[in-house]
Amino acid sequence: MIKVEDAIAIIEANSKKMPTKLISVSKALGYVLAEKVISPIDMPPFRQSAMDGYAFTHSIRHQYDIIGTSQAGDHSNIKLKNTEAIRIFTGAFVPDNADTVVMQEHVMANKDSILIATMPEKFSNVRPKGEQIRKEDIVFEANTLITPAAIGFLACLGITEVEVYKKPKAAILVTGNELVQPGKKLKKGKIFESNSVMLEAALETIGIKKTKVYRVKDNLKATKNALKSILKKYDVVLISGGISVGDYDFVKEALLQNGVQELFYKINQKPGKPMFFGSKNETLVFALPGNPASSLTNFYIYVSPAIKNKLGFTEIHKTKVVRKLNSDIKNSTGKTLFLKAKYDETKVTVLDGQSSAMLNTFAVANSLLIVPEDIQEYKKGQLVTLLPID
Amino acid sequence: MIKVEDAIAIIEANSKKMPTKLISVSKALGYVLAEKVISPIDMPPFRQSAMDGYAFTHSIRHQYDIIGTSQAGDHSNIKLKNTEAIRIFTGAFVPDNADTVVMQEHVMANKDSILIATMPEKFSNVRPKGEQIRKEDIVFEANTLITPAAIGFLACLGITEVEVYKKPKAAILVTGNELVQPGKKLKKGKIFESNSVMLEAALETIGIKKTKVYRVKDNLKATKNALKSILKKYDVVLISGGISVGDYDFVKEALLQNGVQELFYKINQKPGKPMFFGSKNETLVFALPGNPASSLTNFYIYVSPAIKNKLGFTEIHKTKVVRKLNSDIKNSTGKTLFLKAKYDETKVTVLDGQSSAMLNTFAVANSLLIVPEDIQEYKKGQLVTLLPID
Repeated sequence: MIKVEDAIAIIEANSKKMPTKLISVSKALGYVLAEKVISPIDMPPFRQSAMDGYAFTHSIRHQYDIIGTSQAGDHSNIKLKNTEAIRIFTGAFVPDNADTVVMQEHVMANKDSILIATMPEKFSNVRPKGEQIRKEDIVFEANTLITPAAIGFLACLGITEVEVYKKPKAAILVTGNELVQPGKKLKKGKIFESNSVMLEAALETIGIKKTKVYRVKDNLKATKNALKSILKKYDVVLISGGISVGDYDFVKEALLQNGVQELFYKINQKPGKPMFFGSKNETLVFALPGNPASSLTNFYIYVSPAIKNKLGFTEIHKTKVVRKLNSDIKNSTGKTLFLKAKYDETKVTVLDGQSSAMLNTFAVANSLLIVPEDIQEYKKGQLVTLLPID
Repeated sequence: MIKVEDAIAIIEANSKKMPTKLISVSKALGYVLAEKVISPIDMPPFRQSAMDGYAFTHSIRHQYDIIGTSQAGDHSNIKLKNTEAIRIFTGAFVPDNADTVVMQEHVMANKDSILIATMPEKFSNVRPKGEQIRKEDIVFEANTLITPAAIGFLACLGITEVEVYKKPKAAILVTGNELVQPGKKLKKGKIFESNSVMLEAALETIGIKKTKVYRVKDNLKATKNALKSILKKYDVVLISGGISVGDYDFVKEALLQNGVQELFYKINQKPGKPMFFGSKNETLVFALPGNPASSLTNFYIYVSPAIKNKLGFTEIHKTKVVRKLNSDIKNSTGKTLFLKAKYDETKVTVLDGQSSAMLNTFAVANSLLIVPEDIQEYKKGQLVTLLPID
């Protein structure tokens, strides 16, 4: 049995980054850059007007003749005399010998000429070439997460493909003779199997889609055979059930006989104690408790950071939140507690129904309140640490 | 020109919920329930052991004969005498005339009998039938967001389908003669078009996929015709560009000529002032500024809450964050400022590069710092309000 922080450290040390691939920028949301990206162009690529107005060469003169127009997309490099101006629009090319744009609101204009009422400073409202980024400069460092804004910035530089870490392929193996698929008839002594759809959805929230679900009968041979092919095909394997004390030998044996290296087994926490973590080649194996709430707790605490590490994230843990506690908490277990909780802008409330079998509480929780193993008591009003969940 | 808070209120009042549909629970992540859900079963469906141990009828006696086994999934309703116990595992059926389970760790056992070393209280380690939920009780109220935990809970009750609000179909219409698709050659005076992929990705972060992108030449007839068919087919239409002062008449005219009702135009904010919001039947139209950073700012402030409203969310705005400011901020504009900012656990830093054309700052920001229009100055160390962004 190991401590929570040791389990987290072991997982972090053993979840190596995925191989990389080239991907279209338009499909890259949620991926992480595997290489730095260099700008192929200056942005803006030319001196741009930042306003709708008139471009001219700055002087003490207030009156100018209008000799042309520059709309966004135009490139007529009109040569202006120092008595001349052109009508210009936001984003449009500023002719080489104009240096200033005056906002149209600061001008009295007729068809052929303008009178500048409020003279702008020289160089006003002209975006210099390369103001945002210069050609050959670094757009993003490696390990940058690709957000909507990042996609926009890459696209505006004309970049269509980037090198990213691949997403891990994940499989879920469900064990348990007591389980019946939802939609079928529930015979006596049986319960509906819910962990597979729950874990599939949890994986989807961190960008892992098309998870394959396998089911095996509760016997060593079937599990061993199923694992043999699963371990070859997937980067992350989640096993549901068969790992608590009563049936411990069975799933663990199937894993060990398949050459999975045990990295830890059992964590000093509640809920979620009976969990096995191991690896074979680069494949990570998480044998999660069969109790749904324990399973989902350990997904958030252990599986999610491991996958984010494989995806290349620099911040693999969610930013913790600190809130004022709304009631007393006692911890006589000597274990780290993960309590389903709901926080708002000022306080956090521990929810009723913390049993490891209960998912209804989890469905209304927005966080796990962490009570470290060496804390026997938190008092109402004390500041406590939360892990937000989606 | 209207105030930010009025624009938000108008959008909220005009974004009605989508029609509903039946969806498979396994596909329901991110949807919102349109109806309350009633439990078809008691959960657990029978009295369950919460431990691996021995089930017996509580008495002063410490020694019991072992007369059978109940594994998870079994349903052998063994009749126990008061001198008898059965071996039982977590999740297994507890025979009707047993009332207590003792943990295996608290027992000395041989093949045929046990001696209880630490006697549990009567009814210990037995989960009552219906402890989590009773048949006919409410599982979730309408307007509950479907999370991984909710999916797990629905599945464990054997529920396979739920009624949810449909996701809106979205289209993006891109205008601007200055725009070139990334991957093509950038001619003089042109820039790469980046708003469509950026807005597609932003929509994807709130669950709207397969957004269709349309592009039209900058003329009234083409835009009017394109909008005519788009307005019929989509629930949300984002238009990129063509709405700032210089070209205002043009996109607005195309919208009005198509029967779109203007709900507001121009907001007293920076960046993002030139925005039009309107509706036709149930279709919402957001004509966003062409500048990428303005466009994305207004997506987060206005489009995202409108779509969440259509999706049935009860909390359509992200929970605001309050942090200590790391520098002074001046606001001489009389407008509400949305500043790209980065916050950590204690403080917030306003990033360099706030120009409305600049996306690189947005790509490293994790929030927008809001400076209300009536605030002229924030001092370093003051608490300020942030809108987190993904």
